[in-house]
Amino acid sequence: MAVTGTGVVRRVLDAAVELFAQQGFDATSVQEVVERAQVTKGAMYHYFRSKDDLLYEIYHELISVQLAGLERIQAVREPAPRELRALITDLVVTTAAQLGAATVSARELHRLAGDKSAALRAQRRRYHEAVRELVERGQRDGEFTDTVSAQTVTLMVFGIVNQLPQWYRPDGPTTPRELADEIAGFVLAGLGASAPGPQDVGEESDADR
Amino acid sequence: MAVTGTGVVRRVLDAAVELFAQQGFDATSVQEVVERAQVTKGAMYHYFRSKDDLLYEIYHELISVQLAGLERIQAVREPAPRELRALITDLVVTTAAQLGAATVSARELHRLAGDKSAALRAQRRRYHEAVRELVERGQRDGEFTDTVSAQTVTLMVFGIVNQLPQWYRPDGPTTPRELADEIAGFVLAGLGASAPGPQDVGEESDADR
Repeated sequence: MAVTGTGVVRRVLDAAVELFAQQGFDATSVQEVVERAQVTKGAMYHYFRSKDDLLYEIYHELISVQLAGLERIQAVREPAPRELRALITDLVVTTAAQLGAATVSARELHRLAGDKSAALRAQRRRYHEAVRELVERGQRDGEFTDTVSAQTVTLMVFGIVNQLPQWYRPDGPTTPRELADEIAGFVLAGLGASAPGPQDVGEESDADR
Repeated sequence: MAVTGTGVVRRVLDAAVELFAQQGFDATSVQEVVERAQVTKGAMYHYFRSKDDLLYEIYHELISVQLAGLERIQAVREPAPRELRALITDLVVTTAAQLGAATVSARELHRLAGDKSAALRAQRRRYHEAVRELVERGQRDGEFTDTVSAQTVTLMVFGIVNQLPQWYRPDGPTTPRELADEIAGFVLAGLGASAPGPQDVGEESDADR
């Protein structure tokens, strides 16, 4: 067994996601994780101090990718309907690409306490606030109806995205991109926006399908 | 200690909901549940065979109330937009009334296996299918747009409802009924329905607020 560096990290995290998803965080031992990952306990403890660290890192990876997407999209500075479609698309596609991590995070993150939990909550709050401010901007500019509060819209969007792992099947007939188009179209219609079609969102739209 | 019959059942289930929500299903022992409920282990085992039975009953109570609501609403046979508003309202109000049970069910139900799990899944599927058929009916009758599939709409509605316990605060400024109106209005707009206002839904609308 000569797995080192990022090889260890990747294998340990992938094994932890599988086991936490199958049998739950509490019911999984560190011993089971290292066996599944085929690394030594010493190798694992070189990178992670505890089982809590694994759970932290599983969600941290996912939310970091999503926050990077948020920054990329915000940098373009588009009208609110277009930006909201881009954000929802990115959230759906990144969640669908990390279904195991998303499942485990949704179920088990409440088991984390202390600084690490606070750090993850702060990251998640940053994304929530970006969506809420975007909806408020669209409402101020008259692009969205204000019959529903920006706060409730935000919580509904994340409700939809966070529940995806419970029912989205990557081997089913719907691609993540198609699903993202359906969800974004529905949310924009719910906000009364004359929604830009997915073909208008950006030049990468077709290439990504 | 002379708690008997339904008194025992209620106290045990309430204690189990509190403990499972606070510290997780796996991390909670039967001993902790009976101590919190202030009943004897013998009394508890008269009604429940195992910790799994408690988890089953927690979700079974919630879904049974919701299925009864579904039947009551279906019996009236209203146009699809009105019926969908009534269903969403009932789901939101019953979830808000049982936040602890809804939280525990969302996080822990995957821990159940076998017949009991299958029975609960069948009940949940019954509600999902009712919503999907209702959306399909509205799409057929031209009351809803069909740009988003009835299946995806159904999963989004339950995504929104199932995530409620994570953020809805009963001591906050929004009543369950107001929240239900916001959510139903958003979903109906998402479906392109010229939504009936909440005041049109039924005579109990104002009395319930």
